[in-house]
Amino acid sequence: MSQKTDSVIKWVYAFDEKTENMNSLLGGKGAGLAEMTHIGLPVPPGFTVITKACKEFINNNYHIPDSIWQDILINIKKLELLTNKTYGDVNNPLLVSVRSGSVVSMPGMMDTVLNLGLNDQTVLGLSKSSGGEKFAYDSYRRFIQMYSKVVLEIASDKFESILDEIKLKNNYQSDSQLEFNDIQKIVNQFKEIVLAETGSDFPQDPYTQLKLAVEAVFLSWFSDRADEYRRINEISDSLGTAVNIVAMVFGNRDQNSGTGVAFTRNPSTGTKELFGEYLDIAQGEDVVAGIRTPKSISSLEESNKDLYSELVKISKILEGHYKDAQDMEFTVESNKLYMLQTRSAKRSALASVKISVDMVSEGLISKEESLNLIDPTRINELMLPKFSDEEEDLSLKCKAYIDSGLNASPGAAVGKIVFDPTEAVEMKNLGEKVILVRDETSPDDIHGMHASTGVLTAKGGATSHAAVVARGMGKPCITGCDSLHIDQQNKRCTIGNQTFQLYDIISIDGSSGEIFTGTMKTITPSPSDTKELSTILEWADSTRKLGIWANADTPEDASKAIELGAEGIGLCRTEHMFFGEERLPWVQQLIMSTSSISTNGNNQQNKYQESILKMLEFQIQDFYEILKVMDNKPVVIRLIDPPLHEFLPSYEKLIDQIYEEKMNNNQGELLDQLEDILAIVKDIKESNPMLGLRGCRLGILYPDIVAMQTKAILTAACQLIKEGNNPIPEIMIPLVGDYRELVVLKELLLQEASKVEEELQLKPSYKIGTMIELPRAAITADDIAKHAQFFSFGTNDLTQTTYGFSRDDAESKFLNEYQEKGILSTNPFKTLDEKGVGQLMKIAIEKGRLSNSDLELGICGEHGGDPKSILICHNLGLNYVSASPYRVPVARLAAAQATINSKN
Amino acid sequence: MSQKTDSVIKWVYAFDEKTENMNSLLGGKGAGLAEMTHIGLPVPPGFTVITKACKEFINNNYHIPDSIWQDILINIKKLELLTNKTYGDVNNPLLVSVRSGSVVSMPGMMDTVLNLGLNDQTVLGLSKSSGGEKFAYDSYRRFIQMYSKVVLEIASDKFESILDEIKLKNNYQSDSQLEFNDIQKIVNQFKEIVLAETGSDFPQDPYTQLKLAVEAVFLSWFSDRADEYRRINEISDSLGTAVNIVAMVFGNRDQNSGTGVAFTRNPSTGTKELFGEYLDIAQGEDVVAGIRTPKSISSLEESNKDLYSELVKISKILEGHYKDAQDMEFTVESNKLYMLQTRSAKRSALASVKISVDMVSEGLISKEESLNLIDPTRINELMLPKFSDEEEDLSLKCKAYIDSGLNASPGAAVGKIVFDPTEAVEMKNLGEKVILVRDETSPDDIHGMHASTGVLTAKGGATSHAAVVARGMGKPCITGCDSLHIDQQNKRCTIGNQTFQLYDIISIDGSSGEIFTGTMKTITPSPSDTKELSTILEWADSTRKLGIWANADTPEDASKAIELGAEGIGLCRTEHMFFGEERLPWVQQLIMSTSSISTNGNNQQNKYQESILKMLEFQIQDFYEILKVMDNKPVVIRLIDPPLHEFLPSYEKLIDQIYEEKMNNNQGELLDQLEDILAIVKDIKESNPMLGLRGCRLGILYPDIVAMQTKAILTAACQLIKEGNNPIPEIMIPLVGDYRELVVLKELLLQEASKVEEELQLKPSYKIGTMIELPRAAITADDIAKHAQFFSFGTNDLTQTTYGFSRDDAESKFLNEYQEKGILSTNPFKTLDEKGVGQLMKIAIEKGRLSNSDLELGICGEHGGDPKSILICHNLGLNYVSASPYRVPVARLAAAQATINSKN
Repeated sequence: MSQKTDSVIKWVYAFDEKTENMNSLLGGKGAGLAEMTHIGLPVPPGFTVITKACKEFINNNYHIPDSIWQDILINIKKLELLTNKTYGDVNNPLLVSVRSGSVVSMPGMMDTVLNLGLNDQTVLGLSKSSGGEKFAYDSYRRFIQMYSKVVLEIASDKFESILDEIKLKNNYQSDSQLEFNDIQKIVNQFKEIVLAETGSDFPQDPYTQLKLAVEAVFLSWFSDRADEYRRINEISDSLGTAVNIVAMVFGNRDQNSGTGVAFTRNPSTGTKELFGEYLDIAQGEDVVAGIRTPKSISSLEESNKDLYSELVKISKILEGHYKDAQDMEFTVESNKLYMLQTRSAKRSALASVKISVDMVSEGLISKEESLNLIDPTRINELMLPKFSDEEEDLSLKCKAYIDSGLNASPGAAVGKIVFDPTEAVEMKNLGEKVILVRDETSPDDIHGMHASTGVLTAKGGATSHAAVVARGMGKPCITGCDSLHIDQQNKRCTIGNQTFQLYDIISIDGSSGEIFTGTMKTITPSPSDTKELSTILEWADSTRKLGIWANADTPEDASKAIELGAEGIGLCRTEHMFFGEERLPWVQQLIMSTSSISTNGNNQQNKYQESILKMLEFQIQDFYEILKVMDNKPVVIRLIDPPLHEFLPSYEKLIDQIYEEKMNNNQGELLDQLEDILAIVKDIKESNPMLGLRGCRLGILYPDIVAMQTKAILTAACQLIKEGNNPIPEIMIPLVGDYRELVVLKELLLQEASKVEEELQLKPSYKIGTMIELPRAAITADDIAKHAQFFSFGTNDLTQTTYGFSRDDAESKFLNEYQEKGILSTNPFKTLDEKGVGQLMKIAIEKGRLSNSDLELGICGEHGGDPKSILICHNLGLNYVSASPYRVPVARLAAAQATINSKN
Repeated sequence: MSQKTDSVIKWVYAFDEKTENMNSLLGGKGAGLAEMTHIGLPVPPGFTVITKACKEFINNNYHIPDSIWQDILINIKKLELLTNKTYGDVNNPLLVSVRSGSVVSMPGMMDTVLNLGLNDQTVLGLSKSSGGEKFAYDSYRRFIQMYSKVVLEIASDKFESILDEIKLKNNYQSDSQLEFNDIQKIVNQFKEIVLAETGSDFPQDPYTQLKLAVEAVFLSWFSDRADEYRRINEISDSLGTAVNIVAMVFGNRDQNSGTGVAFTRNPSTGTKELFGEYLDIAQGEDVVAGIRTPKSISSLEESNKDLYSELVKISKILEGHYKDAQDMEFTVESNKLYMLQTRSAKRSALASVKISVDMVSEGLISKEESLNLIDPTRINELMLPKFSDEEEDLSLKCKAYIDSGLNASPGAAVGKIVFDPTEAVEMKNLGEKVILVRDETSPDDIHGMHASTGVLTAKGGATSHAAVVARGMGKPCITGCDSLHIDQQNKRCTIGNQTFQLYDIISIDGSSGEIFTGTMKTITPSPSDTKELSTILEWADSTRKLGIWANADTPEDASKAIELGAEGIGLCRTEHMFFGEERLPWVQQLIMSTSSISTNGNNQQNKYQESILKMLEFQIQDFYEILKVMDNKPVVIRLIDPPLHEFLPSYEKLIDQIYEEKMNNNQGELLDQLEDILAIVKDIKESNPMLGLRGCRLGILYPDIVAMQTKAILTAACQLIKEGNNPIPEIMIPLVGDYRELVVLKELLLQEASKVEEELQLKPSYKIGTMIELPRAAITADDIAKHAQFFSFGTNDLTQTTYGFSRDDAESKFLNEYQEKGILSTNPFKTLDEKGVGQLMKIAIEKGRLSNSDLELGICGEHGGDPKSILICHNLGLNYVSASPYRVPVARLAAAQATINSKN
């Protein structure tokens, strides 16, 4: 099959060729280089092997197919014409870099090889034709090391230790101090390593070098770290990477050469300023890898004014072109600037909102474009805890202050020190908060960074791996803390002059770079604390069509929800009210008194009544408070839902207690009591509680509970009306699968409500509705809608039953494996499964609206706070989504984006 | 609202009025009386209050609304004109009966009152105008007793004991021997009982009598026994009953009077002969209640030739009219015959097939009508065990023979004697087989009869309550065993001259009426043993469109399935093969060796390989045998499905064992071993195993198991081909929810299959398909069908997930209550839920066929053997249904009926 398509596919595009869909065809880097070439920016000549070739490479048993290789060779010829150099020529050799470039940016995840084309002969030619021996051999030793690592898979530290040895011997501080002699020696020793490790000499044929390097870049798409990155960032495995082959320009050529990274705006604060770093006499990898600490880009304004202003000019051109802040890589060879990459700048949430709002003021983009520039899930970072600056806390902070590093990713974190990324994951799984403390991070540390609440490194700048990745994850990060020294052996470190053991607690402020010993008091900012965020959310509110409600079970959560912009409560779970210390015993008494196991007749009936009355008392107060907070706003109150066993101790715990008593020969009252409870627990035990006696089924079997809750809601509402408030309760019946369940409970509910209305001589308005959380409810929504004023999609349970996944079981037993194997591209409990669950929702909405055109439709599953799911909800035509209070701002923005993007 | 509709509804129809939809309007009895009137048969004049009035009665707070009462009064006037008598007239009083009559026949379930209109005055008028004092007072005492029971709710035994006392004192054998004086005394004593029990005199106003009697009949629709009957027979509560008011004719008038019940054909054997019973000088209730043992109807051929031939004539007319065998009630008043009821005759399964086939031969009905006359679920009775008549068993039977009674309902049963219907239910719930032994049965015994394997009574004839109900239930029953005497006090009985204690075992043959002590050897007949059944099934096979396959996991079951007419195996559950004594240890070793808990490395890997190989050996043999039996027929083999914990001991059992060891201070190897297993059991424990790691999820996590099973299937198939057979395996992947699950496993399966094909140099043909048992599979069937050659609907699980019902939990916790409350009309695990599950199937079928027009579609859930569900499957356009082997004949007939009835 591959032969057939080969003949028609154009596998390679030179940067100066124009084409459609550049990004998906050429990958991000290739597209950026081509775009910059087209708009006249200085880019070295080069070409891109398209992303589709990656799949072809796999199908061809992990070898480049001939057709693709031929296209590469033709384009190498073109490069030779453009550069007037010849690849592999011993006198005037063309050197190239081979760089990965996937459709979605995966910074540092995949491999790059620079200086290809060098061998024992061409290094001499380079030396003659260009900047001399030292430069040529410096390039050669870089090439051997990088090629060995990427293509030959020889560990880098073997090469590093040779470098370190020579630097130590000569007392050099940096690589740039190496003399020609040193470098020559290094090259020889490097070649010996290669011989020793591979049993063959370092490959001298430039075309072999090229072919293997291209294959290595394709292969790096499948590296563990790249897989991990894609899994965390939900990037499809099937995209593949492109390969860019670019004529080398040399930042290590001479004193007037160097390399840098620049952002068009400050990626931490969003300030409109050129921000970045520059390292002279260096190649690109030196900056990113944090090998030497670079100079700030602003220092160029004095030291190299022309270069600086050219960068500023280019940065404006690129922002105007892309309508977004850019992250650029460049190299200066003998005072001439070359652009090597441009891409949308990764930025902090704060920078994200500031840049978006500023660019609207600057007339660069529209409000809608501005809303679309922000990742909704990230604005939560602006509401993450930060350390309190209140007077009393400030003095504590002063006492606890140890040292500062670079403020690489904003936010504050408190946690136990761990030194190993895998241990970070283990600790997180134990429920611990940890701070990952490392010398520097590498792509192999990703899983540990993901598991930590914050990251602290000794080396690296604001664009080092740790900084870039932490910002991407929204985690506080401090890099370049020079006073940090780690003693891996003894599992301890020093910061400043203090020593910390594994698991000692520290606090880090990624916004200021400050490090504190112990736990600092944290405060949680509100959206209104950030002016630009308020602006963005206002724009979002005037754009979005979906209502944004919140899930809240307490007055505190309800207040928070309102503060964060919620327009109602979409899910108030009443059973959460039963777990309080003074309440649970009554609930347990109720359960024990309804059990068919107990047989103390009248007494049981009395206890039953007593517990119902007691719970009524509690519930009136509960509903009074929450409806008061939510004055004038709807509150969807769900009647009791979970299986009763959740209110009793677990079988496992009870049996252990009982045997402990027995083994200690205790025969007392406690044992009897435990055995009584065990009998009930056994009696109500279910094989699959998720599909058992819960939801409306409970209400139908124990109508007194429903009656009690209804009475409590109506009584609370009446009381509030008397006090001049306007409560809007909506009573929701859970787990309905057949309309007759709803009919039976609705009747009971209306009866109980009229009793209260008659007694209190008031008629509060309220709605009665149901959750749609079973496939059968969705399929028979037409029947159900005749008896309901609203539907609320319980997509957590609907996902469980539609997929036949028990959430707990699935997530711990096979869901990860499913995602790794590509069977599921996302976790359906996180992002709504549009094809399955979404389809059932569609059926329910169409059938429901058909038989009840006034039907109010919402979603109260956790998907209500997930932007991708919110887009689906918008497209389905829901009236509102309900999210947890802290997700409300996220949902407001996501709903606005849904409105904008579904217009297209 | 009731006022509004009242004005237009005609609440009452006289028998001579014609109308549409008589049965649903008038109920069975009313419709029969009207039909017989219209075709000129002798029916006393009367009228019917329509079934809809029953609902109106409820809505009017359990009182007859005025409008209905007025219609009744008008019709009473008409009756007076027709009979030339006057209701309540003291000289020539019109008497009436008030009789229930629902749409679906519920024999004996509801109430009837005879002789209405009698009081202290009219009894004198009756005496003068008709057959004298004794007859008039006999009618009066009957009336008081019946009215008191039905309307005043006074227990009958109070009246019975007065009757018994007088009979004993005078040494009368039967009621008919009572003298006028006796009866007068009885009437007075009866009236005293009424005064004592109700505090009022027996109501003398005939119109009060009438009104209350009508209301009592309506109310009897809601009696416990009627509710129970409807629940068992799945009759809707909302149908309601009609009330028939008929001018009395008197079977107790004189020596030339009597009453009887006759079947147009023998309801036990199906023989074409008038069959029934006749009791002279009696009223109808005497026969049905089994108060006196009646004469056989054939005796009339000699004693009253004219009457007999008139009955024969009428029976032919009715069969010709209804095209079905009839069950008639009649009364003879002074040699004049009156028909009081006709309805389709309840009959044994044997009679049912014989009558149907005979009526085709007689040219009375078509083959299609004949197929439709038989209840498919009942033909199984023809394959129920009967006692062996082999020589060696015969001698045992002779020794064990005790006595005989009437062969009231055919079939053989062995069980423990119980005397109390409630105890029968309790014993059944303990898994015991019981025979209910009673003096006679009444409608209050229904639940006990349902729970028993057979029924034996001392009194009653072939049309007694016990006989009629047992035949309806398809249970063996012997009635009228005169030598049976029950000592309830001491919980024992004598039969013949033997005494039996509670729980002693007896065997009863309902076909012969024989009773044996101990357990008789039973044999199970095949359909071909009954000629008429073979004929019916042949006709069914040539009529039906659905294929009939069977669920079978063993060669024995598969043979049985073929014998019973199965055309393939629709579900072969491979995991059932793992539970054998010599197999389970290997399965357990496999599970233990895959667990992440165990850590003995290499050894674990070895054990894993060893158990896989061992299981391969077993499975090759398993598949070889079943495919051999099913030569030339498809066998759908489902890959391993259940959660692994099912192969290990339960947590509860383990923990008890461990603590027992500990409490006995045992520290040995056993304890270690138990704790090892417990650790694994804890590790693989799931909150909701039904929604957990099972089905294809297992296969994806443990591909070696799937590979092993595939290898076994293909190896077995190759072996059979070499031996000249034609195996047709279809490999089924369970619990698919996303097509990518199927893709991954299909690839593995194809790989493994080609390995076998290559090794054995044979290419067996096989199919790969999937179960559709999750809502998501149904919703995304278009994607799935692209990768499947067949779908098999696993409606057990599909019902669980669509409803969110865990089958075990739901059935034990709330499903009964749901059915009692009318929330569900049927158990969705028994009869397919057409609105929910059926709708999902429809979606799956449409989407599946759209993307794969060759898709083979079947059902393997238990619904495949349920006639109502089979009709749904037919209408959905499935290719086949698969049922348990013993349900195959049921399914063949039901599928034929589906073809016939869906033509309409």
